[in-house]
Amino acid sequence: MNLLDTIHTPRDVKVLNRSQLKELAKEIRQTLVDVTAINGGHLASNLGIVELTIALHRVFDSPRDRFIFDVSHQTYVHKLLTGRNDAKFRQIRMSGGYSGFSDPTESEHDAFVAGHAGTALSVALGFAYARDRISGCRGSHVVAILGDGSLTCGMTWEALNNLVTATKKLIVVVNDNEFSIDRNVGAISIYLNKILTSGFYGAVSNAVKKILGDGKFGKAVVRGVRKLKRAIKSIILPTSYFEYYGLRYFGPIDGHDISKLEEILEFCKFSKVPVLVHVKTIKGYGCGDAIHFPEKFHGIEPERVCDVTSSQPDTVSYGEILGKELTKLAKKDETIIGVVAAMARGSGLSYLRDHCPDQYVDVGIAEEHAVTFSAALAKCGMRPVCAIYSTFLQRAFDQVLHDVCLQNLPVVFCLDRAGIAAHDGMTHHGIFDLSYLRLIPNAVILQPKDVQEFTNVLHSAFQWHCPVFIRYPRSCNRNVDPNTIKFSQYLPFGKAEKITEGRRVCFLTLGNMVGLANEVYQKLKNFGIQGGIANMIFVKPLDEEILTDIAKNYELVVTLEDNVLMGGFGSAILEFYNDNGIKINVLRYGWPDEFIKHGTSPDVLRAEYSLSAANIMDRVLSILNIHTP
Amino acid sequence: MNLLDTIHTPRDVKVLNRSQLKELAKEIRQTLVDVTAINGGHLASNLGIVELTIALHRVFDSPRDRFIFDVSHQTYVHKLLTGRNDAKFRQIRMSGGYSGFSDPTESEHDAFVAGHAGTALSVALGFAYARDRISGCRGSHVVAILGDGSLTCGMTWEALNNLVTATKKLIVVVNDNEFSIDRNVGAISIYLNKILTSGFYGAVSNAVKKILGDGKFGKAVVRGVRKLKRAIKSIILPTSYFEYYGLRYFGPIDGHDISKLEEILEFCKFSKVPVLVHVKTIKGYGCGDAIHFPEKFHGIEPERVCDVTSSQPDTVSYGEILGKELTKLAKKDETIIGVVAAMARGSGLSYLRDHCPDQYVDVGIAEEHAVTFSAALAKCGMRPVCAIYSTFLQRAFDQVLHDVCLQNLPVVFCLDRAGIAAHDGMTHHGIFDLSYLRLIPNAVILQPKDVQEFTNVLHSAFQWHCPVFIRYPRSCNRNVDPNTIKFSQYLPFGKAEKITEGRRVCFLTLGNMVGLANEVYQKLKNFGIQGGIANMIFVKPLDEEILTDIAKNYELVVTLEDNVLMGGFGSAILEFYNDNGIKINVLRYGWPDEFIKHGTSPDVLRAEYSLSAANIMDRVLSILNIHTP
Repeated sequence: MNLLDTIHTPRDVKVLNRSQLKELAKEIRQTLVDVTAINGGHLASNLGIVELTIALHRVFDSPRDRFIFDVSHQTYVHKLLTGRNDAKFRQIRMSGGYSGFSDPTESEHDAFVAGHAGTALSVALGFAYARDRISGCRGSHVVAILGDGSLTCGMTWEALNNLVTATKKLIVVVNDNEFSIDRNVGAISIYLNKILTSGFYGAVSNAVKKILGDGKFGKAVVRGVRKLKRAIKSIILPTSYFEYYGLRYFGPIDGHDISKLEEILEFCKFSKVPVLVHVKTIKGYGCGDAIHFPEKFHGIEPERVCDVTSSQPDTVSYGEILGKELTKLAKKDETIIGVVAAMARGSGLSYLRDHCPDQYVDVGIAEEHAVTFSAALAKCGMRPVCAIYSTFLQRAFDQVLHDVCLQNLPVVFCLDRAGIAAHDGMTHHGIFDLSYLRLIPNAVILQPKDVQEFTNVLHSAFQWHCPVFIRYPRSCNRNVDPNTIKFSQYLPFGKAEKITEGRRVCFLTLGNMVGLANEVYQKLKNFGIQGGIANMIFVKPLDEEILTDIAKNYELVVTLEDNVLMGGFGSAILEFYNDNGIKINVLRYGWPDEFIKHGTSPDVLRAEYSLSAANIMDRVLSILNIHTP
Repeated sequence: MNLLDTIHTPRDVKVLNRSQLKELAKEIRQTLVDVTAINGGHLASNLGIVELTIALHRVFDSPRDRFIFDVSHQTYVHKLLTGRNDAKFRQIRMSGGYSGFSDPTESEHDAFVAGHAGTALSVALGFAYARDRISGCRGSHVVAILGDGSLTCGMTWEALNNLVTATKKLIVVVNDNEFSIDRNVGAISIYLNKILTSGFYGAVSNAVKKILGDGKFGKAVVRGVRKLKRAIKSIILPTSYFEYYGLRYFGPIDGHDISKLEEILEFCKFSKVPVLVHVKTIKGYGCGDAIHFPEKFHGIEPERVCDVTSSQPDTVSYGEILGKELTKLAKKDETIIGVVAAMARGSGLSYLRDHCPDQYVDVGIAEEHAVTFSAALAKCGMRPVCAIYSTFLQRAFDQVLHDVCLQNLPVVFCLDRAGIAAHDGMTHHGIFDLSYLRLIPNAVILQPKDVQEFTNVLHSAFQWHCPVFIRYPRSCNRNVDPNTIKFSQYLPFGKAEKITEGRRVCFLTLGNMVGLANEVYQKLKNFGIQGGIANMIFVKPLDEEILTDIAKNYELVVTLEDNVLMGGFGSAILEFYNDNGIKINVLRYGWPDEFIKHGTSPDVLRAEYSLSAANIMDRVLSILNIHTP
């Protein structure tokens, strides 16, 4: 690890010779493998972008020039080259370590926050527009780096449509690895693939090399550009698609050849119109396993990098249960259709895809379309199951409201990664859904406490003729064999479950927070307090009967939710008691009104935010006026 | 009105001859002008689509065949032809009348609800996908009818990208009138315009006529299709753009020539791949004023159809004030940039466009891009003002959270049409914003009580370095000359205004509801109750000092908001009092947890939902235990 340790700023990358660059790339890859083996993270996409990131930093001058990485999960290499090859990098995605995404508070080299796909082009247009108007930085370049998956996002096209009027100077690099998270879908993916397989690939590379010569650029090139224009245009084909948007197209370029990348990027600097550079990379490049199973390696869990076939985790994934149960249901009911937005594996629906391919649709990273498409299926009498992570469903808030709920259409939404996301941090926490869904009329919202209850909830959802939102974290802390989980009974609609009855204090909770309530309950017992616990299951509609009953029998109600306190589950409880004229002390626990950083685990973050059992116990005791020794 | 009155179902349209169709179109136009003159509504776009709608109903068999109208503000003609030429049509957009948009509860001919742009293609794909799988309706056609403006929506492109894999049988009609709401923007608009002006227009029309002959179709045509393919393809150019998406392109077709439209649509029925028919229409066709000022006539106010230059309304439009004040500010500060999503006139920013064109950006119907673009401008030190209607900002919920608020970027959002929208109904009420914005950390949310306070709020917003959301209804019920409104003072951040002090009951309110609070206040005086009124101005952050103070001095707090009760302003008040251990009776007024239909006026709707001053007074008196005679 000699060379990488000498890189403190991008300037240090610029002075390396070709063989040093090769060595640097190798060292970076080793670092990526080592660090993600411990911390988890986006290994394959970072392995694939090593040479491109090096080339970008050699050609451009960050932070004067601005790199806008879409999603920005592929910025580990960028972090290593911009002064962050340090202890915090070894702690990436953990408490105290760097974020796994772009974060301007970490470094001036991170231009903008990102985490959700499809924003880079809009951001880049804004940066270019501002640059064109603020004197002094006219010379600086704005470079957007998108995966081909981001081309399935509507937002990207909204920006593309505006590109021609926003600026004359912008460089868009499409890092095409034929994957977004899963293998890409749709017309654009087919189009890009056509380019790659059209036979132009080799020809273009050679032609570009010939024309651009040995990499000496500058004013001479600028003078020559006009003459070259036609020559290049005639060679680099088919270009027409992106030219509708006013972009000059260059590519495809071998994304693992630093020299070629540098040549074309240098050339782009002098373009008088926006350019799109189509770079072909291999996800997982340089690491055997990751190349062969890129989908599995997209975002890996800590300590599992070399353990692709691991089948004995100490938790059960909700996605795994969803995939299997849905497949059972789908085999009996041909109207059931699973809809995912590029998350076949993450959502667990890859199982449905493999077993009932005709009842599975992956629309790409296109949550808006996924939701409205599902609404239409439901309107036609089908039973769509739309599986989208909690944080990404934010992208389709209007479609949920305007297309699904307004018509009370029976779409079953499965919101994985609900609650605090820990490693992925600020852009990925699924802690807003209870609030942003609860305000929508007709929405039925629930969170099961474990995979068994989840199975029952899922089956029950098909009995109800309304939009149903089932939220749950990635996995359930229950040491059970997933194969033993079986549907056992339908849930009564809108009914809570009394877990224990007691006196003085009652915990109203649901989902993964039932465990926390149990912990506090046990601790309180030591002080002679035998409280009650209600697993509410439903956030909407609330079980008003049980709430009324509880208010009669307890002096304090404690709400626990894995969601922001603003407008969430606890707020619903307050509204119910207030609007029904019921007086009861309510103590609310959930996430505060701030963006929560990443952390080593949900438990670590909870402890940081006073959401530990000990903390809650102390406060309950104090309210109940019980003095601890 | 003879012929139109004989149309009870689409079948009645099919039997008319050419001269009767001309007469029918004329009668429909007269009806549209008459009804919108009284009720307001989308006149120009409906005038433009008369012939296309007639042709659609002659060629297809609704409701077996499904029409999916994008936005669906252009469905008045469709309503007239599908059994709704009745008293309720004369009451369109009013209480008891039909909706101004597509509504399946009105008629089986309305396939799906719409109101926000860009959903039609996703819906159509869902319908087609379901049709292809449900036996028995394999023969039915799905026809999506979009304006060219919808091609600026990201959602449309997400659906387009999925079209090729979703179905082989779909007809997409692009109704190109070169306008979305304002004149269209961006690359796609330029592209469409190129087709229109390419000289192919006339040639194509003639060629299609020659090939398709006299309109006799059927099996003969199907047999001939393959042979015709190449001939047509060579004539109808440039086709390449939409063919990337697997669509066969036909057009442009004269959208006011029923025969030509019928011919091409009949032809489309037999296509074995999805087709896109590019129809050229003139917004406002057949009505002089509407053609010359289509932007003004897009959505017109009641009784103003012939009164384009009216300048003496009895209310002042917030948009007008925004346009003028922002222009004043922009002239002094070149970093201020107005950003709109196809709502130049509706938002009032057309004034900025006309006076500071370099500080104005219209991105098309692309709210997601508008918001993230604004975020990037703010990150670069500019001061963007993003003017989007409350209901349409729902489309950019994730961008507000993930791109603006997460980085605490100083974008000023101007949310027009906040609160109940009355005429436009379910899809357009701006009654969710307080709830969906309040849950987002760093969001500062306010609603001024009138145009004067709005002016002060707007100027103040530029003093604060955070995202600011200013919501307001279309107009202010204050009989003032807009020219007398001037900025007078900066608002203290987060501070409420005590309007009156009193005892027993205090009204916490803001915005247009201050007027309602005043009304109740006056009524209560008759019963010897002199209450208090606090104009909170800020929903977030709350003025905690005044809230604490009020709890000490009153026994009842009444919250009044033009927003849903779920998670809204009143809910914020409950959270504050509860979490600070302050006991006080709170009575909350706002919109209930259901989708509210359209109505004659906000007041009419409020009365329907117990939001009248008399109702509130009665309940307050009852709680205060004061008996009315």
